[in-house]
Amino acid sequence: MQRLHALSTLLMVGLLHSPLSLAATSVADMRDTLDQLKATSTASELAYELTESLTTEVGPRMVGTPGSDKAIDWAVAKMKTLGFDKVWIEESQADLWTRGDTNAQLTAPYPHKLVALALGGSVGTDGKTLTGDIVRFETLDDLKAAAPGSLNGKIAYVAYRMERHIDGHGYGKAVGARVSGAAVAAEKGAIAFVMRSVGTDDNRLAHTGVMRYKDGIRKIPAVAVSNPDADLMDNALKRGQPVTFSLQLGASGPTGKTVRIANVLGEITGTTNPDEFVLLGAHLDSWDVGTGAIDDGIGVGMVMAAAHHIGQLKQRPARSVRVLLFAAEEIGLIGAKDYVARHGDLKNHVIGAEWDFGNGNIYELAPGVGPSSLNAIRDFAAYLTPMGISLASTNDAKGQSDMSLLGEAGMPAVNFEPDGSDYFDYHHTENDTLDKVNREALVNNTTVYTLFAYFAAQSGVDFRQ
Amino acid sequence: MQRLHALSTLLMVGLLHSPLSLAATSVADMRDTLDQLKATSTASELAYELTESLTTEVGPRMVGTPGSDKAIDWAVAKMKTLGFDKVWIEESQADLWTRGDTNAQLTAPYPHKLVALALGGSVGTDGKTLTGDIVRFETLDDLKAAAPGSLNGKIAYVAYRMERHIDGHGYGKAVGARVSGAAVAAEKGAIAFVMRSVGTDDNRLAHTGVMRYKDGIRKIPAVAVSNPDADLMDNALKRGQPVTFSLQLGASGPTGKTVRIANVLGEITGTTNPDEFVLLGAHLDSWDVGTGAIDDGIGVGMVMAAAHHIGQLKQRPARSVRVLLFAAEEIGLIGAKDYVARHGDLKNHVIGAEWDFGNGNIYELAPGVGPSSLNAIRDFAAYLTPMGISLASTNDAKGQSDMSLLGEAGMPAVNFEPDGSDYFDYHHTENDTLDKVNREALVNNTTVYTLFAYFAAQSGVDFRQ
Repeated sequence: MQRLHALSTLLMVGLLHSPLSLAATSVADMRDTLDQLKATSTASELAYELTESLTTEVGPRMVGTPGSDKAIDWAVAKMKTLGFDKVWIEESQADLWTRGDTNAQLTAPYPHKLVALALGGSVGTDGKTLTGDIVRFETLDDLKAAAPGSLNGKIAYVAYRMERHIDGHGYGKAVGARVSGAAVAAEKGAIAFVMRSVGTDDNRLAHTGVMRYKDGIRKIPAVAVSNPDADLMDNALKRGQPVTFSLQLGASGPTGKTVRIANVLGEITGTTNPDEFVLLGAHLDSWDVGTGAIDDGIGVGMVMAAAHHIGQLKQRPARSVRVLLFAAEEIGLIGAKDYVARHGDLKNHVIGAEWDFGNGNIYELAPGVGPSSLNAIRDFAAYLTPMGISLASTNDAKGQSDMSLLGEAGMPAVNFEPDGSDYFDYHHTENDTLDKVNREALVNNTTVYTLFAYFAAQSGVDFRQ
Repeated sequence: MQRLHALSTLLMVGLLHSPLSLAATSVADMRDTLDQLKATSTASELAYELTESLTTEVGPRMVGTPGSDKAIDWAVAKMKTLGFDKVWIEESQADLWTRGDTNAQLTAPYPHKLVALALGGSVGTDGKTLTGDIVRFETLDDLKAAAPGSLNGKIAYVAYRMERHIDGHGYGKAVGARVSGAAVAAEKGAIAFVMRSVGTDDNRLAHTGVMRYKDGIRKIPAVAVSNPDADLMDNALKRGQPVTFSLQLGASGPTGKTVRIANVLGEITGTTNPDEFVLLGAHLDSWDVGTGAIDDGIGVGMVMAAAHHIGQLKQRPARSVRVLLFAAEEIGLIGAKDYVARHGDLKNHVIGAEWDFGNGNIYELAPGVGPSSLNAIRDFAAYLTPMGISLASTNDAKGQSDMSLLGEAGMPAVNFEPDGSDYFDYHHTENDTLDKVNREALVNNTTVYTLFAYFAAQSGVDFRQ
C-alpha cells in the first residue's frame, strides 16, 4: 500500500523532472550492443583483479580500523583509473566498536581451549574472567521460553546449526540468535551468551556478525564458537555433568564514539538522460577477521567492472550508471541509511541491483518493478536465458542488503539470485579470503550486471510503472 | 641383506622359543570366524566411540602438556573396561618443547595480520619483535641453492604448495622444507624461516609439525603460515616492492628438560602361543592445536576396537594380539625408539600393522613379509577383495610411522593403504577434530584391522619366512 502511493507520487515528479521523454528501446534494438558487452565482459577478469587489489592492498575494512579509510582512498583512485566520469564520496559517521582479544575455554569437566569470536557490538568482560555453567538451548525460541531468573549466574548457549541451501535461506533461520540472543539471555539472568556460529562449514573458525542489545536490559558479553567447538560442547554436555565455560573478552561494547565513514560513488554519465541513474551497489566495508573477499570484495569488483565495461562503449547508454559502494553495511546498513537520508525520494534512481550474497553463478532474476515494465524485464530475462538464468515468478524484490533501504524508499530493484551454497562457509570468518572466490562465476555474474545496467540505462523504461 | 641375516637368526631363535609348533590354519579353515568378526565389527561404532571419548575427555595430547598424561590414564582405563587381559605402560622420557604465542604480520607495503604457527621445536624471538624483508623461494632446493650470506638480515620464505594425492605422497615432497628449512636458511644468513603450510586445504589455519636444527648452525625461529596467507604474501611480493615480515614467537626451542612419556600396551592373550604377538599400533600423542581426532585418535580407536572384537570371541586365536599405543610420535617416534630399545630383536612379534594415515576406506594391502608367507597373505587379501581391497604388487612394506622402526628392526609388517585425499586438509591443524572423522570408513577400516589381526594370530604362518 505504502509502496503504490509512493510510486504514483514519484511518477508525477518523474514526468516533471525528465523533459526529454526517453524513447523506449527494446532488447531487440540493443542486442548488438548487449552481445558486444557480453563478449567484452566474458573475456575480462577485471572484477577479480579489483578484488585481488582490494584484499591484498587494503585487506580487512571494518569501521573504525585503518582499512576502512584506506578502502575509501582505494575505491576513489580505482574509479578514476577506470575512467568513471564522476567520482565522489559522501561522508557520515558510524559508532565505533573494537573487538579486542577473545579467550574462551571449557574449564570443567574437560578443559578445552575454544575457538570463539565476539559478536559485533558485544561488551567485554572488563579485563576479568567470567565463569559459569552452561545452559544449553536448541534454538532461540527455546531460550525465549526459559523462565525469568532461571539463568541467574549461568551462561546461555544456543546450539542451533544453520542449514545449507542454494539461496542461503538457512541464514534467516539462524541469525536471530546472533542478533538478539544476548538480550534474551540477559532478561533471563544469564551472565554471558554463547552460540554456535551462524555458518555451514566445519572449520575451527568462528563466524562474527552484528548483535543488538535491548534498551533497559543488562548488556552481557556475546560470542560465537566455531562449529567443531559447538560439537565438542554438545558432546561434553551429553555426559550429564555440569559444563563450565570461562570467558575473557576485550570487546568494547558501545563506546559512545563515532568515526568517519563514507559511501564512495562513481558514474558513467548517460547521453540523453544523464540525471537518471541505474544504480549498482555493493558494500565496501567488511568484518575485520578475513580480507572481505567474498563479503563483499567481489561485489565491489563486479559493480566497478560492469560500469567500466559500459564506459568503454563508443556509444554510452541514455541514462547514467551510478556505482555506489556503501559504507558500514556490516554494522547495520549505516551507509545506506545516510544515502537515503541525503537523496530523499530517489526519484531519479530508475532501478538498482546490489551484490552482497553468493559466490556461484546467478540462476534467477527476481524483479521488483511496476506491472507495466514487467514486459521489458521479461524481454531482458529472455536474453539471459542462454546463461542459465530464469525469471522468478514473483515481482516483489526490494534489493539486497543495503539496497533494501532504497527499495523501501521507492526505488525499483532487481535481485539476481546466485548459487550461495558455499557462501556461509566463509561469511564473517577469517576464511573470507581471495582464494575462496569462484573466478568463473565472478566473470559470469559481472557479465550479467554489465548487461543489466546497460539494458536498464538504455531501455527508457520507467520501472516504477 | 641385513634383513635376511636377521631373519635367519630370528627363525632359529623362534624354533627354540616356540615349543608348540603352531599348525598352519588356512583362511578357508577360519572363514566362519572371519565372517563372524566381520559382522560384529561392521555393526559396531566402537572405534568412533573411543575417538569421541579421547577427543572430548582428553583433547590435545602434546608431549609436555596435561593431555599427554591424561591420555595415558584414559587408555589404561579404557583397555581394562574393554576386557584386555593385560594392560601396562612403558615409561620413558622425551624433550620438552612449548609453543607459546605467535604473532606474525606483514608490516609493509600492505600491513596484514597473518595466521601462522611455530614449527615444533622452533626457538622463539626472546620476547622481541623480529623484522626483515622476505626473500621468496619456490622450493627448499631453491633455498639450498642461495649463495652463503645472501640472506643476511632477511627472512627466508619457501612458497612450495603441497599436492593432493590419494596416497598422500605429496607430503613427502613438501615436508623437507618443514624439517630442515630453518637450518638451511640460517646457513645462508637468514634471521627467520617462514613457509607455506604443508597442507592441501585453503583454510586460515596453519599446519604445525616437527622441525630440526643442525649442530653448529644458528637456531632461527621457524613458522608456517596458512595457505591463504601464503597466497597473500605471494600476491604482495608479485608487485615488486620489498615485503616486510614481522614476528614475535613465544616458542621455547630446546629446553634441555625432559618429561615423562609412556607407551600404553594391552593384550588379548592367545590360546596356544600366547608369547607370540600380532602387533596393532597407533600413536596416542597428538599436536596441541586440534584434538587429534584424525591424527591419530581414529588409529587409537581402531586398534583398541579390533583387539576388543577378537577378545569377545568364544575361541581366542592361537597367538596374542598386542595393542601398542605409541608415545611421542609427533616429535620424532620417541615412543617407538624406546619400544625397540626395550624389546630387542622383536623375535616374538610375528607381524604388525599401524594406523597413522588416512581418513577414507582402505583400498590396498601392501605386505612386507618373507617370500614363503606371501601365499597366506594372498589368501587373506582374497578374503578382503569384496571390501574393495587389492593386494599391492610390492612386498617391501616396513610398517607406517612408529612401526617403521620395528620394521627396520626385523618385524614383518603389513601396510593398509587408505584413501588419504583429505588427510592433509586437517593434519597438524586446529581443524583436526571429531567432526572430520569419516565414520563409515572408520567402521570399514576397523573391520579390516580386526580381520587382519585374527588372521595373523590364528594362521600359524611365520611371516619372516
